[in-house]
Amino acid sequence: MKVGIIGVGLIGGSLALSAREHISDVEIYGSNRSEINLKKSMELGLIDHKLEDRLIKQMDVILLAIPVDIAMEHLVDLLDEVNDNALIMDFGSTKGAICQKVALHSKRGQFLATHPIAGTEYSGPAAALPDLFQDKIQILCETQKTRPDLLEWAQNWFRKIGMNLREMDPVEHDQHITYVSHLSHVSSYMLGKTVMEKEKDQSAIFDMAGSGFSSTVRLAKSSPHMWIPIFKQNKENISETLSQYINNLNQFKNLLEADKFDELHQQILEINNIRQILEGINRTNNNK
Amino acid sequence: MKVGIIGVGLIGGSLALSAREHISDVEIYGSNRSEINLKKSMELGLIDHKLEDRLIKQMDVILLAIPVDIAMEHLVDLLDEVNDNALIMDFGSTKGAICQKVALHSKRGQFLATHPIAGTEYSGPAAALPDLFQDKIQILCETQKTRPDLLEWAQNWFRKIGMNLREMDPVEHDQHITYVSHLSHVSSYMLGKTVMEKEKDQSAIFDMAGSGFSSTVRLAKSSPHMWIPIFKQNKENISETLSQYINNLNQFKNLLEADKFDELHQQILEINNIRQILEGINRTNNNK
Repeated sequence: MKVGIIGVGLIGGSLALSAREHISDVEIYGSNRSEINLKKSMELGLIDHKLEDRLIKQMDVILLAIPVDIAMEHLVDLLDEVNDNALIMDFGSTKGAICQKVALHSKRGQFLATHPIAGTEYSGPAAALPDLFQDKIQILCETQKTRPDLLEWAQNWFRKIGMNLREMDPVEHDQHITYVSHLSHVSSYMLGKTVMEKEKDQSAIFDMAGSGFSSTVRLAKSSPHMWIPIFKQNKENISETLSQYINNLNQFKNLLEADKFDELHQQILEINNIRQILEGINRTNNNK
Repeated sequence: MKVGIIGVGLIGGSLALSAREHISDVEIYGSNRSEINLKKSMELGLIDHKLEDRLIKQMDVILLAIPVDIAMEHLVDLLDEVNDNALIMDFGSTKGAICQKVALHSKRGQFLATHPIAGTEYSGPAAALPDLFQDKIQILCETQKTRPDLLEWAQNWFRKIGMNLREMDPVEHDQHITYVSHLSHVSSYMLGKTVMEKEKDQSAIFDMAGSGFSSTVRLAKSSPHMWIPIFKQNKENISETLSQYINNLNQFKNLLEADKFDELHQQILEINNIRQILEGINRTNNNK
């Protein structure tokens, strides 16, 4: 079986490792916008061959693991190009726009929109991990629009990788993911910005930063090549969620300035319930 | 040597373990507002005896590891009470108010204000760790006001524990720590609140939360018993820093809504430099 991976980075490279382990007689073809990273992914043994445009027709499966704007751009051409039994899947963090883009395509049945809830703040093929998807959630959108035999193959592969499958409407996906992923990124980026602006005056400040700070700004290391297209495609949801976040921050500030510490105490006690929720996440993610 | 620990929780308990290992012939006395936790700290072998009020005079060293408001309340009485060669140290996250409180005390020389940049989001004696302070920064304030022999003893002990000592003015400490600790807590609490408000309508949302979300809301698990007094004592700095953070979030939202993605991209590229800064932190903290 020939698997073509467009974008052999953190996600694409980890998919390559998962394909190598769980698909028999697999030959992996890969492409990358960076020639250096493409070479690296060969050196690392992630891919066997370069995925030239002329080889697209030969692929049985094509995995799109590139920024969401470029994935959208390529998808229609790829669907036009692939053979009639090939499956194309994308792995982006937004699902509404890409599903809409191919809604009326004659080969819609050969596409499956997915979002694995897995990743790190690092990018590139060297960041790929063999167990990145183990015990993680894999969201599948509009499965009824994917050809049943192709869908079944994909579901089997994801289960073999150790993923827990969830079906979700693409528009709902984009709303919900804003709260538990996109907002965290904005919050982290702006926290980093606020502290770095201060740091210009006072370089010793980072001496005082501990693990709590590292944890809250970890996502601020994430690449804009991946995240700006996500912000673009999910603009309305992010803007709305950000308003709610800013309102909560303003409300906190007002309570602080008005010395309403009892009210803040009560609020934080309620927020502490996030502990149970996070334990639930870790249970789900780790299957422990 | 008799060491009394007031508040045998995460910090106090970890100090107990560090005292046990690095102070010869140490006898550890402890107290706790919760009888259950006090018993637990005995069962865990953190302390040898209960620190009764009548025993305060016998202590050679007293470690205050309780919320910053209660530490302030107790410190003057404790200084009045201790013998003339005892040292009292506090380990709170705010330093301005406590230093001011005892500035004119006749036994000011027997007090040392410290802030270890170490901790986790957990509390209580069961959260104590033997290596919590290893390779961590320990901030010491107004060392010139502490009696040289007592200061030297404290510095030696902290170095033995593996801490890196930094001296800092208490008012500057409170300004700087706001950026790299207190703001992260507010940001995390409010992120948790925003998502939990949404979750009321949609319980499936947390299915979609991954490690990025866990990382940014980790601090939202922190206890209000510790944090409300910090917010109270450092109100002005937090309010000011929070304004800067909210401004940055509003600016991000405006750029997003105006489709100024090139500008956002540039901004994020600059924020990505936090990577080097965080690596610096980890190097300092881990001594690697």
